[in-house]
Amino acid sequence: MAGKLTFWFELASTYSYLSAMRVDAMAEAAGVQVIWRPVPLGPIFGSQGWDTSPFTIYPAKGRYMWRDMERLCTARGLPFAKPDPFPQNSIHAARVALAALETPQGRAFCKALYTAQFAGGANIAERATLEAALRGVGLPVDMVEAAADPARKAELKACSDAAAELGLFGAPSFTVGDELYWGDDRLAEALDFAAAQPA
Amino acid sequence: MAGKLTFWFELASTYSYLSAMRVDAMAEAAGVQVIWRPVPLGPIFGSQGWDTSPFTIYPAKGRYMWRDMERLCTARGLPFAKPDPFPQNSIHAARVALAALETPQGRAFCKALYTAQFAGGANIAERATLEAALRGVGLPVDMVEAAADPARKAELKACSDAAAELGLFGAPSFTVGDELYWGDDRLAEALDFAAAQPA
Repeated sequence: MAGKLTFWFELASTYSYLSAMRVDAMAEAAGVQVIWRPVPLGPIFGSQGWDTSPFTIYPAKGRYMWRDMERLCTARGLPFAKPDPFPQNSIHAARVALAALETPQGRAFCKALYTAQFAGGANIAERATLEAALRGVGLPVDMVEAAADPARKAELKACSDAAAELGLFGAPSFTVGDELYWGDDRLAEALDFAAAQPA
Repeated sequence: MAGKLTFWFELASTYSYLSAMRVDAMAEAAGVQVIWRPVPLGPIFGSQGWDTSPFTIYPAKGRYMWRDMERLCTARGLPFAKPDPFPQNSIHAARVALAALETPQGRAFCKALYTAQFAGGANIAERATLEAALRGVGLPVDMVEAAADPARKAELKACSDAAAELGLFGAPSFTVGDELYWGDDRLAEALDFAAAQPA
């Protein structure tokens, strides 16, 4: 009897990693249904005049982010190591995620990619990383190749466009209807709001 | 028997307003001593290539900020209205704040400026706003004029330089020794850290 929450995540985003690892448990406790939607930030950052992560463009902000992540991961008992490169190209990974999310193993696949990248130092732009994550959750590795399908590309583009339409400018973000919440720091508020909505 | 927390605030910053209105009560509950330091972000933003607030430069981020503030102020029972202009020129107000903070009424003066600006629509760049705030807390209005003293200007410059040295890139920020926390969202964590340090 609650509203739905859409969880917009960028697979190369550190703070999206934080939310991905806790959103389902928190949503279940709040009685809220969650929809996972990958949203590569490249095009959105590009429209703001950025050609890479703001953490790379603004060094003080970047230094702070790594320390902040280190503290938050320690507090939450999550493994964390700075991946190289950062940020990673997440476009194809997001297409594979869209396909995976049509199966019951989709969320586990996304979490496996976050762990590979932010705990294991793997590059999610590499086919081997995607294949290992698919294999780990029992999905067929040919989903990597299949995700290059034009229809899948169009689906991801539509996902990005929908996010931009909702005013999204960073990740993770959460939407409940038209209401936008930005950042892992707003996850609890977003769930409270969703829980208070009619189904 | 706890460490000290330095609260770095920008008088024209919406999220600094949120922290200013709660930091002392939260710090008292945590047994932590707070040092208030004004830090005009103009020079720090300038070093990042910005000539105004990022909320003005990036419209989607700006639209979100106003909605986020509206929600947070409602949840905390704080009055809030978008001031015009925004952002305001806070340089002279910060110099007056430095002088005011040498008196017992300093924090009340800063809070009065936030309320005038973010609840009353006043412009803190105007002498009348500064004088009204001083008068309201029982401080002499000639502190406005006196704050133009070169020594006071140098003191504010030193304050900004110290903030930049600590890696500060936005406001509010909190430091405990070399440990930096950015944003009203990190106030509780910063206080927890301070409370765990030796005096």
